[in-house]
Amino acid sequence: MALDLRKVGLVSELIGVELNPAHAEKALELGLVDSIQSKEEALKSSDLIILAIPVSALSKLLPLVLDIVKKEAVIIDVGSTKSLICRAISGHPNRGQFVASHPIAGTENSGPEAAFEGLFRQKTNIICERNKSSAKALSVAAKVFDALGMNTIFMEPEEHDKHVAYVSHLSHVSAFLLGQTVLDIERDEKNIFALAGSGFASTVRLAKSSPDMWAPIFEQNAEYLSQALLEYIMHLQKFQYYLMKRDVKELHRIMTEANRIREILNGIEHKEPKQVIEK
Amino acid sequence: MALDLRKVGLVSELIGVELNPAHAEKALELGLVDSIQSKEEALKSSDLIILAIPVSALSKLLPLVLDIVKKEAVIIDVGSTKSLICRAISGHPNRGQFVASHPIAGTENSGPEAAFEGLFRQKTNIICERNKSSAKALSVAAKVFDALGMNTIFMEPEEHDKHVAYVSHLSHVSAFLLGQTVLDIERDEKNIFALAGSGFASTVRLAKSSPDMWAPIFEQNAEYLSQALLEYIMHLQKFQYYLMKRDVKELHRIMTEANRIREILNGIEHKEPKQVIEK
Repeated sequence: MALDLRKVGLVSELIGVELNPAHAEKALELGLVDSIQSKEEALKSSDLIILAIPVSALSKLLPLVLDIVKKEAVIIDVGSTKSLICRAISGHPNRGQFVASHPIAGTENSGPEAAFEGLFRQKTNIICERNKSSAKALSVAAKVFDALGMNTIFMEPEEHDKHVAYVSHLSHVSAFLLGQTVLDIERDEKNIFALAGSGFASTVRLAKSSPDMWAPIFEQNAEYLSQALLEYIMHLQKFQYYLMKRDVKELHRIMTEANRIREILNGIEHKEPKQVIEK
Repeated sequence: MALDLRKVGLVSELIGVELNPAHAEKALELGLVDSIQSKEEALKSSDLIILAIPVSALSKLLPLVLDIVKKEAVIIDVGSTKSLICRAISGHPNRGQFVASHPIAGTENSGPEAAFEGLFRQKTNIICERNKSSAKALSVAAKVFDALGMNTIFMEPEEHDKHVAYVSHLSHVSAFLLGQTVLDIERDEKNIFALAGSGFASTVRLAKSSPDMWAPIFEQNAEYLSQALLEYIMHLQKFQYYLMKRDVKELHRIMTEANRIREILNGIEHKEPKQVIEK
């Protein structure tokens, strides 16, 4: 976001707050930020604050952030869950300064070196509890997400959390445990990975993701994710049952139904040109 | 294979056998083959026969192929299972003319229009029951797979089937049923796919694969695939248990272990330059 917002001239000075000294140094070296400052220093002087930290830290930190920022500052988060975060500041007198956001974009890589320009272009951004943000805060957020080239939609936090459990969090869990399953068998079967092709690589790619980022997301979305996981497990068990019965017709039918995902994936891979955020 | 083998000049004339008239016409139009002939005609006149059909048809057809081919012809298959296919011709007097192969390469697309040059380059090929093929057949197969740029390794059929159950067949099942799970919930939750990003697309990509090709593979490899599926389901259930317990530490530990897949995927994505097949 720093790279893209600077490029379009939406920000004049970028301040980073970073606990990890090696990441702080790297962010400066890469020109992602102009300076690294303490949390308090940065929060008290900034006009726009983007909170990109694990969601567990986010729901704890957010009330304190709203306590100390300037009256005209706008705060945006980019967390992958929204219910707990919105609840954490629902009664805060400065709630209006905050825009609860989830720009859906990212890779399995993390740290300053994982940053690249254009990551957010033509992707979907979700703003939750839009009516609890001030008109000014929404307008600043609109400028930010428009500048990133995103298509913003609006949702309530619970609806958001339920949907992302299925289309994002579940695919991460499925990749992590597919990785785990194959790593397990590898202990007994040497060189098993000589046989792995690009299909395996694609399916398991998300297993490279950061546990520090994902463990808190899964915790905060445990109810909906658990529901999604149970449905997934049920489908897998059914498939295994037909497999053991050698019921090829039924296996074929299930796969043919799943093929419908092709149309949807075509939609994802050729996302509509960005729409301007509703102001 | 047709595109690549013609390009390097390994074949002078390419004959296609195809049941689907639209595919036959397209293969001619795209120059994949020089002519389309009946199975009998093609088999009786060819020096090299590459069998690329569903594995269920393969294990039925292979004995008949060995009955009618020329004495000097070499037959290669490209099926994703090997045990049943090898068993089908184990006592055949012309067994030596056949090389049981599995070039591990492909995409989720099928039909003549899915063909492109270089698909096999730097990928792994597996030859099974090498000692049951004649020296001549192995030498022709070596020329073919070298020309495709593949790295050939040797395995016994059972070992092959077990390994591919984990690193190939299981990822297909996991993708098919992830697709199914999300399509299911979509019935109740409209527009859920607006939230799907590139991570979901990557994890579910294989769900676009052909049921005609994969149902017979799963059937032939039902025992090993079922074992792999049970292990995968067990891992998912354990994860769900820790999720419901909000045991973030344990979730974090599981994900950190799965992260080890990163090194392995780096290996897949930057496969060694091809080694020459051992002759």
